[in-house]
Amino acid sequence: MKNSNFLAYIAGFIDADGSIYVRLKPNSQYRYDFQVSPSIVLYQKSTEQVFLKRLQDKLKMGYLRIRNDGMIEYTIGDRESIRKLMNLTMPYLMLKKKQAKLILRVLDKSKTVKSANDFVKLAELIDKFGSLNYSKRRIINARVVRNHLKNKGLLTP
Amino acid sequence: MKNSNFLAYIAGFIDADGSIYVRLKPNSQYRYDFQVSPSIVLYQKSTEQVFLKRLQDKLKMGYLRIRNDGMIEYTIGDRESIRKLMNLTMPYLMLKKKQAKLILRVLDKSKTVKSANDFVKLAELIDKFGSLNYSKRRIINARVVRNHLKNKGLLTP
Repeated sequence: MKNSNFLAYIAGFIDADGSIYVRLKPNSQYRYDFQVSPSIVLYQKSTEQVFLKRLQDKLKMGYLRIRNDGMIEYTIGDRESIRKLMNLTMPYLMLKKKQAKLILRVLDKSKTVKSANDFVKLAELIDKFGSLNYSKRRIINARVVRNHLKNKGLLTP
Repeated sequence: MKNSNFLAYIAGFIDADGSIYVRLKPNSQYRYDFQVSPSIVLYQKSTEQVFLKRLQDKLKMGYLRIRNDGMIEYTIGDRESIRKLMNLTMPYLMLKKKQAKLILRVLDKSKTVKSANDFVKLAELIDKFGSLNYSKRRIINARVVRNHLKNKGLLTP
């Protein structure tokens, strides 16, 4: 398969059954007590492990995780790989182009965070995944982050 | 998007979240009392109707069906379109190439049916979708067809 065709294939796969998202995870090791965790995930039944391994070998990024429920996840979590994959598949994405642009914006913005206020703005940007992905259980959103940082006295008015 | 890229995209979409299958449906209008019904189906949440409509407009085949459960199906059911789509996406399919080849074989074989015995052989070929698609509820299989045609005295030993 030609390289551009392979990337278009991956775009179709992501559009049909993949996820592009960023989560905020409580983690006191991080400066503002939350880790910004971006992911691109492809799902399949674990019977298709060989196939996902093939994708992984071709893309040279990410890792496979076998879940307990008979599913397998191919996750790309490191920022450099995410940037690369999003830029390569962007021209072919039809359904999840907005998510692709948003994850790139989040990665860019996260590099420019200089204050707790900036971090809250970043969290607000991440919140936009909620409506794009119709996700119902985003527990940690910008409001939670804002309240936490406010209580710690880190926010300026 | 270039045409070959669009076809690779569709292949990725089918591999991730599409179905390629043939069903046998009881129907006394047909010569051997069963209709051979092939389908290629793409699924999405009904919020993505505009997107599926775009695919339909580009592929110029099939129809959309809004289900009661908030899903929408884009189904290609006519044989000429199925042939065309399978031949066009075949080079790019990675997961469902076997199903694609099998549906083409079924379409070919169904044109050569000349007897009830031939029809049972066709039903046996259709049965192969069961294991390829891990389908659990194939009620009408070759055994059912064979028994029915046997009871009608149509099978030669």
